[in-house]
Amino acid sequence: MSSKKRTTIYDIAEKLNIAPSSVSRALSNSPLVKEATKKLILKTAEELNYKINTIASNLRKGQSNTIGVIVPRINQNFFADVIAGIEEASYRQGYNLIICQSNESYEREVQCVNTLINQQVDCIVVSLSVETTDYKHLESVLDRNIELIQFDRVAENIETLKVLNDNHQASMEAVSHLIEQGYKRIALLEGPQNLNIFRKRKEGYLDALKNHGLPVIEELMLANAWTTELGAEATRKLLSLPQPPDAIFASTSDFAALGVLQVATEMNFKVPQQLGICGYSNENFTEITNPSVTTIDQHSVYMGKTIANLFLDELKNTDTSVAPKTVSIKPKLIIRNSTLKNGK
Amino acid sequence: MSSKKRTTIYDIAEKLNIAPSSVSRALSNSPLVKEATKKLILKTAEELNYKINTIASNLRKGQSNTIGVIVPRINQNFFADVIAGIEEASYRQGYNLIICQSNESYEREVQCVNTLINQQVDCIVVSLSVETTDYKHLESVLDRNIELIQFDRVAENIETLKVLNDNHQASMEAVSHLIEQGYKRIALLEGPQNLNIFRKRKEGYLDALKNHGLPVIEELMLANAWTTELGAEATRKLLSLPQPPDAIFASTSDFAALGVLQVATEMNFKVPQQLGICGYSNENFTEITNPSVTTIDQHSVYMGKTIANLFLDELKNTDTSVAPKTVSIKPKLIIRNSTLKNGK
Repeated sequence: MSSKKRTTIYDIAEKLNIAPSSVSRALSNSPLVKEATKKLILKTAEELNYKINTIASNLRKGQSNTIGVIVPRINQNFFADVIAGIEEASYRQGYNLIICQSNESYEREVQCVNTLINQQVDCIVVSLSVETTDYKHLESVLDRNIELIQFDRVAENIETLKVLNDNHQASMEAVSHLIEQGYKRIALLEGPQNLNIFRKRKEGYLDALKNHGLPVIEELMLANAWTTELGAEATRKLLSLPQPPDAIFASTSDFAALGVLQVATEMNFKVPQQLGICGYSNENFTEITNPSVTTIDQHSVYMGKTIANLFLDELKNTDTSVAPKTVSIKPKLIIRNSTLKNGK
Repeated sequence: MSSKKRTTIYDIAEKLNIAPSSVSRALSNSPLVKEATKKLILKTAEELNYKINTIASNLRKGQSNTIGVIVPRINQNFFADVIAGIEEASYRQGYNLIICQSNESYEREVQCVNTLINQQVDCIVVSLSVETTDYKHLESVLDRNIELIQFDRVAENIETLKVLNDNHQASMEAVSHLIEQGYKRIALLEGPQNLNIFRKRKEGYLDALKNHGLPVIEELMLANAWTTELGAEATRKLLSLPQPPDAIFASTSDFAALGVLQVATEMNFKVPQQLGICGYSNENFTEITNPSVTTIDQHSVYMGKTIANLFLDELKNTDTSVAPKTVSIKPKLIIRNSTLKNGK
């Protein structure tokens, strides 16, 4: 229970007054060590409570059978489900997962990358923090010939395997659905535009308006509304406008959509009659709110399995001349009560 | 991007036809290696794209500045919040967290322990899976002199630092609250009794009934109802009894309480008038269901900080003669609409 150091080969070497390399060789049963010496070393190792260290042997082979995953936050169903998918597909192949969270901080994300490199993982799977605009830490992974797979929130110019949702298409479908339900002044809650996913979702919103001949109204597009609190704040502004919107597309997340629903309820806007609400990600809670919230399912478990399979395939791939693949997965609009102004 | 092996000191040694130990010494700038050899080794290391491996140096020192955490599932607010607390208190002290999930499987939990041991973590923090009844894997952590801290779901007989909630007290308070609201036939959804937390919560339920002179009714206590699905199934049975309960205490989790609420709504039982519902853990969704659900807050972020501080304190502790501490934290009953039959 104390914090005293674990026994290492250096302790055994010191005790026996021999070279650490001899201890190492003896413990890996090398024929270069005499049988008598080997026995003595094994006996001493046992006395000192030394446990054979598989990472030492992995160090030599340059592998650890471990996949490291870095996500902004583990407590979002989307990320937890992607992780579950990676785990499901890789566990049976003998791979273990270790997970780090960046807490949406660039500094922490860099630290996570360093930790995973030090842990000798065979592959790093990452979805970027909202603060990340510099990608040197990703380059340092590639420099070390560690497999790097980006998903969802990615640095587009860093050439790695990528697994993405078609955010543009999903966003267009969601806004088209709102328009078809009769909503005419549709507000957009945007995320920070340094992230690919939020840029694509905004493009999808704009294209849907254009396709249906609706004008773009600047005061209805609010930046950086990507948490419950920021979503609530943005909604308070929007619903206090002389001409408030009749629908809000929280393109950033269902967490933001929850903020919209809370403020709408508080300000006595009837959902979906006076205000339609659409979120993004199909977090579990969207099904149990009152009313239930229309959202976009990203097939997150399937995304995770795809990531694991890309890595497992890459292990067999010896042709490094081909540029790394990008796999795009089509998300699915889940229509619920919060947008059913005119029924299905 | 290929899966080719990383350069190790063995590759450099082979290229130069010298002993790996010399490469190792040169790279750690040992005075035992001649300057000319050192230069040659550094040059070759650079050519082969070798990156200095901090874990190799940690191996020697027997430390990695990393804390490993094993939880049943990362996507429960309780566990995610404990992890957030550990991270908050340890990050500024230079410790990084790596997280593994057992998915409530004993086999996976053992695998997580092995992974974290191999990763040379300085401390393992664990909350047991629902399947775990054998504790050899925990003993193997102690054998290696790695600090082990158990929280929430613990093996009581394994002597380690422990951080617990007072489950007995919290459960007694919840059931007493139900009785004070006028509920008389209070059902209990129990968890698997191999886990300390579920045993204590059942004891608290029984003691509350006894203290208020209410009889124990066997048909109202349902075993193994600890997920949304199992909670729903148990509720269907309970509400179909000739004399159904007038309240259900889902002592296992808010997920089970959600199952209760879904079936109650489906079977047209009015909550809280005809059926009171109390959950456990204060998951975020309990606030947004209709009605909101009474539950027990476990001060999970504070629990996490307590865990980190115990570990950091232990690092300074040189007295190993004292038995490891158990810290007990008093949870808080959060009264919401699902149990307010008679108002506050």
